[in-house]
Amino acid sequence: MMTPQDVVAARRRIAPWVRQTPVITWDDHRGKPILKLEALQVTGSFKARGAFNRVLAAREAGQIHEAGVIGASGGNAGLALAYVAHRLGIPAEIVVPETSSPIKVQRLRTLGANVVVQGGRYGDAYDFALARQEVTGALFVHAYDQFDVVAGQGTVALELLDQVGSLDAVLVAAGGGGLVAGVRLALPPEVRVIAVEPMLAPTVRRAIEEGGPVDVEVAGLAADSLGARRCGDLAYEILSTMGVDSVLVGEQELIEARRCLWDEFRLVGEYGGVAALAAYLAGNIDLPDTTRVGIIFCGANSDPSDLVQTQTSVEE
Amino acid sequence: MMTPQDVVAARRRIAPWVRQTPVITWDDHRGKPILKLEALQVTGSFKARGAFNRVLAAREAGQIHEAGVIGASGGNAGLALAYVAHRLGIPAEIVVPETSSPIKVQRLRTLGANVVVQGGRYGDAYDFALARQEVTGALFVHAYDQFDVVAGQGTVALELLDQVGSLDAVLVAAGGGGLVAGVRLALPPEVRVIAVEPMLAPTVRRAIEEGGPVDVEVAGLAADSLGARRCGDLAYEILSTMGVDSVLVGEQELIEARRCLWDEFRLVGEYGGVAALAAYLAGNIDLPDTTRVGIIFCGANSDPSDLVQTQTSVEE
Repeated sequence: MMTPQDVVAARRRIAPWVRQTPVITWDDHRGKPILKLEALQVTGSFKARGAFNRVLAAREAGQIHEAGVIGASGGNAGLALAYVAHRLGIPAEIVVPETSSPIKVQRLRTLGANVVVQGGRYGDAYDFALARQEVTGALFVHAYDQFDVVAGQGTVALELLDQVGSLDAVLVAAGGGGLVAGVRLALPPEVRVIAVEPMLAPTVRRAIEEGGPVDVEVAGLAADSLGARRCGDLAYEILSTMGVDSVLVGEQELIEARRCLWDEFRLVGEYGGVAALAAYLAGNIDLPDTTRVGIIFCGANSDPSDLVQTQTSVEE
Repeated sequence: MMTPQDVVAARRRIAPWVRQTPVITWDDHRGKPILKLEALQVTGSFKARGAFNRVLAAREAGQIHEAGVIGASGGNAGLALAYVAHRLGIPAEIVVPETSSPIKVQRLRTLGANVVVQGGRYGDAYDFALARQEVTGALFVHAYDQFDVVAGQGTVALELLDQVGSLDAVLVAAGGGGLVAGVRLALPPEVRVIAVEPMLAPTVRRAIEEGGPVDVEVAGLAADSLGARRCGDLAYEILSTMGVDSVLVGEQELIEARRCLWDEFRLVGEYGGVAALAAYLAGNIDLPDTTRVGIIFCGANSDPSDLVQTQTSVEE
């Protein structure tokens, strides 16, 4: 079983490589929640934390050879891994499904990754990456279900706690559960952790209901970032042992949260990145106004062009 | 002459109404500059600080009557004034030129302001607002050239200094000079203040050269927010007495800074709001890498739709 100390060690390890992301208290909103602006992290999501921790820990242990690192993802996790390898001067092979957009593939290549397009679905790319890893000996970096990845993601919660002093509850988006498990691990037991998932991608909720991870059909606006089909084993172990609340949000709530983030803060969020805010705004969680609530805004890799101009300026 | 104590008083006065905006250290950039994310302020720019201070100070002094407040601006200053009046429950009349976009006018109306469209140029709207004020007795709130407005804008610098402990230099965008004058006033003399203006709207530079404010032709991408035609008298007095550096940036540098802010931080800036960053990135200011530099990112009221999607996510 992982311990909070693993997150402390991860934080020390990745400190020279990641940004301390800022927080802002939404003072002009009723409950005065605190937004952790993790979307300002390098590569636009929290994924850089876990990827740096996994690769740096392996490097310390002498586990990185000439083949470098390998991962499967055309999304935030792949982007983060390519960035980490670029910064550390390590070769990276990123396997992406055929459905990945040319823009994303181009971005990975710009970071120097060897991009392999394989299979029509994410699962195909994943299987291919695992098989390829056995041939090349590269370090496999999972998108969420590895010890060092979970510990790395948890560092965002330690940082948040340092920034705000104390918290009663934290809302966190969940896909494969790596982030929420890291956050749960990092925070004292008295801080309530609320895992927020789209109704159309309820992997953590289903794992809790079934007593273990099960395959789940996923769809919806946030599927591009929260669309893991199965809660990670490590995440399930941590969440079931330490306790987590589960909340689901609808598609319309995701749309409204993304809109709200723009209207109120001029911040661009991806649907998965604003899931925690969506749950807060929906107001169906029992959170008294006196509760000190943290909301992790964890991803901004979204095309902002639908956020129409609502306010601009003519003259000073 | 205004004193730093005026900014301290302003900060206390407006504290319940404005946001403490976050800072982020750009650790993965050579000089590790500190970005003050003032564009996350209510209404998307620093203008809310000055407007709140002006109106609250007048209210304390019993100077606000049933006609409320009046200002001339279809831009950030008008938006801020309408918001302030809305929050304080005071009537607001905002005079805008005929060239103002319907979206901006609509936004002012949504905040409850009485919007008067008058004249083809900003100067016409300004003159009309002054004349109208004499009839109605409303409190005139200038976009930059009033004691309480300048003091309010300066609060962003006090806040920044508290957040980072110490600074060697601060880069600040300048239009009419209200913000940079407030910042100069707020900071100790040993902190270097650098006023950044577009080459196509050099009001502060020309005032310094001419020994006083003069009318200047303005144009260019940032004219919608930094397009005041003349440096404020108050600003000139403060800047000429206390000392300020002046730097000009080109149009291409503004474009690149806005692009950089998106690529690196997924933040949307307006051209005027990123002027200080543009000057820093252009690299033609003598700032050794050991200098602790603050960069005020002060406005985000921009249509983000030209910031094409460069990175997104497929799967966790």
